[in-house]
Amino acid sequence: MEPLFTILGRGRAGRALAEAWGGRVALAPHEADPGGLVLLAVPDHAIPCQAARFQGRCVHLSGSLHLQDVPSAHPLTSFRGRAEDWGGTPLALTGSVPEPIREAFVAVGFLPFELPVDQKALYHACAVLTSGHAASLWLGAARLLAEAGLELPGRGLLPLAEATLANVAREGARGRTGPFVRGDEATIQRDAEALPEAWRRVFLELGRLG
Amino acid sequence: MEPLFTILGRGRAGRALAEAWGGRVALAPHEADPGGLVLLAVPDHAIPCQAARFQGRCVHLSGSLHLQDVPSAHPLTSFRGRAEDWGGTPLALTGSVPEPIREAFVAVGFLPFELPVDQKALYHACAVLTSGHAASLWLGAARLLAEAGLELPGRGLLPLAEATLANVAREGARGRTGPFVRGDEATIQRDAEALPEAWRRVFLELGRLG
Repeated sequence: MEPLFTILGRGRAGRALAEAWGGRVALAPHEADPGGLVLLAVPDHAIPCQAARFQGRCVHLSGSLHLQDVPSAHPLTSFRGRAEDWGGTPLALTGSVPEPIREAFVAVGFLPFELPVDQKALYHACAVLTSGHAASLWLGAARLLAEAGLELPGRGLLPLAEATLANVAREGARGRTGPFVRGDEATIQRDAEALPEAWRRVFLELGRLG
Repeated sequence: MEPLFTILGRGRAGRALAEAWGGRVALAPHEADPGGLVLLAVPDHAIPCQAARFQGRCVHLSGSLHLQDVPSAHPLTSFRGRAEDWGGTPLALTGSVPEPIREAFVAVGFLPFELPVDQKALYHACAVLTSGHAASLWLGAARLLAEAGLELPGRGLLPLAEATLANVAREGARGRTGPFVRGDEATIQRDAEALPEAWRRVFLELGRLG
């Protein structure tokens, strides 16, 4: 059976999607020259050049970049390098994404929505705040403790991060707790003073953004 | 059978611990006057007064407050108001926590460690960064999208937050992704410009803290 389309790029996203879609799609390296529809799973910087090669028959995966006349489909998740159930995960569509590619995403659980071009940067910034910045907090906190010689047993800060995410998922804003929510200025000041200067600023600014 | 000790305070923490420990402990409201060992599950501001009432036979749960001669046991999690398996979750002990209380925590999975008094503020600040500040990012990002009239389908930003936490739990620093990790300055600038001023500052500062 002819593949529905070809995924170009064997990175985390390309491999995870190819695995999920099984034999219905082809997976090819950057230098391949497939016919038919092409889904560009390549780094942002490589998209313009690849999009020119497959003009009029390609879609890219970037949630940030926008190229005139090149549609994009951005799965709002962080790929783990394996297939999984993406049920309930938004898929941001910009431009005119061909039906076979749209349907393939829907078949593995993604929920498409139209992302206007002029809101793509804000959308991406919010994704970065949700993903990379949360990771920066967890990794930064672990590093600050390690630098102070404080070794946590077991799973360290992870159970707290997990419980917090479960609380926010279930209760929304009510799932956020801590001294900033309580308006506990004495604790806020004591905590802030214990942090190095750069972290202190982020601690106070992000805490008050709420 | 005589209870091992009494939990004073019927808030989230008190109720969750009482449920986990079942009939082995008693759960009492703030105004109660129990004999024997008392575990103070009351807000930080109420601890000094309650600790004075039960001097020499009480332990408080605060991860932030330190009172001379009053031991504390801080479970490093965010209580969900129900009993669960706390396996692998650190329990920060400061001062001399009586064995029955220590053992009760160990019985439901907590892993005790000694937290020196002079590191308690840093420890708490790192817990706040891990919990309340991550919640601030998720809730703030959702608010920014809503204010821009951008409605995400399905579970919105949650699948991304969950995938990120799973990646960090499995891969550590390698689980953090995004434009700051890649050093993609064009995307960083485009994203930053799309954010309101206060968020832009946090976006750039926290992103570069890494």
